Amino acid sequence: MKTYTEYLTIHTSELREIRAITEDVKAALKKCELTDGIVSVCALHANAAVTLGLNEPNFFADFWAWLDGLAPAREDYKLGRGFESNPATVLQSILAGAQTTLSFTEGRLDLGPWQELLYVEIDGQRPKRVALKFLGL
Amino acid sequence: MKTYTEYLTIHTSELREIRAITEDVKAALKKCELTDGIVSVCALHANAAVTLGLNEPNFFADFWAWLDGLAPAREDYKLGRGFESNPATVLQSILAGAQTTLSFTEGRLDLGPWQELLYVEIDGQRPKRVALKFLGL
Amino acid sequence: MKTYTEYLTIHTSELREIRAITEDVKAALKKCELTDGIVSVCALHANAAVTLGLNEPNFFADFWAWLDGLAPAREDYKLGRGFESNPATVLQSILAGAQTTLSFTEGRLDLGPWQELLYVEIDGQRPKRVALKFLGL
Repeated sequence: MKTYTEYLTIHTSELREIRAITEDVKAALKKCELTDGIVSVCALHANAAVTLGLNEPNFFADFWAWLDGLAPAREDYKLGRGFESNPATVLQSILAGAQTTLSFTEGRLDLGPWQELLYVEIDGQRPKRVALKFLGL
Repeated sequence: MKTYTEYLTIHTSELREIRAITEDVKAALKKCELTDGIVSVCALHANAAVTLGLNEPNFFADFWAWLDGLAPAREDYKLGRGFESNPATVLQSILAGAQTTLSFTEGRLDLGPWQELLYVEIDGQRPKRVALKFLGL
Repeated sequence: MKTYTEYLTIHTSELREIRAITEDVKAALKKCELTDGIVSVCALHANAAVTLGLNEPNFFADFWAWLDGLAPAREDYKLGRGFESNPATVLQSILAGAQTTLSFTEGRLDLGPWQELLYVEIDGQRPKRVALKFLGL
């Protein structure tokens, strides 16, 4: 059994932006030469998420509208100024999930035909990190 | 350390259907003869989910009503016809989560007394796949 | 490759309570002497959750208000008396997520500066369990 670690650094130009990172994970998988196991992908920030979805700009628009409906940025959160961002960014991270584990088999990620691993930046315009940890044979 | 892979194929007769897959995962665990480790369970489709919950028809009814309230199928999503299903199916998958990792100890899944692993089919009536990847001793 | 298992028992004095368990996971990591791998953290109850968030009382207040807005305890759920708790507790567990996987590198959990692993007790005042399973080198 071997492990392999990689940290992606993502610096979005927009405050909020979705970026498919499937290809980054595939590239790391190729580099580490593991062929069978799992990879944990985790956003190292309380206001970012890693989830499975579609890599389609129109879907991103639908996603943001939906997320803002369920966890709107408001001024009356109790957390207030104790946190650098609006607390809604953390609720949105919890809703979408900060962490996803994928398996890989014969050197390929186990993903469906439309499925993409999405990094969801909820408070960007600065470097943010995503931890990739591979375990396998 | 060993790995073991199995793909479940689930073909529901309804478009939407919840199916407990705890027994399928237990059967695979028995087959692979691992006794200590983790298993990643991931729906290989953007409109299905794998989550922990209760295996009770009345709970399923409550779950669907709740899910439809939070991510309703609407006609005004931007994704529109670019995707074969209503975009709400993907939002519902994100809400419930497409992937769950469980641990197992002394040959048994670590689950609480009422807990069941549920496959949530959001757009079925066709064969769909779930990837099981076991890692352990 | 080695594995290490630990079950946390959490007995909250309130029915609902959030407790940061980052330090418990760090202590277990130190004890098991693994330095590189992943740890799965899973609530062994259908009405509890394990998620990443902020360890701030004001955030906890915002979180509960938000959770109750999206999955309110109501009397008209179909599950009714078939389950010992209000079905909303299970929907809230699904929303926040019952399970999280973290990686660790050079003996340290991969977490961002504000990130904490939170145990979300949704129906407490009794002993509840959380399974920790470490895999690594």
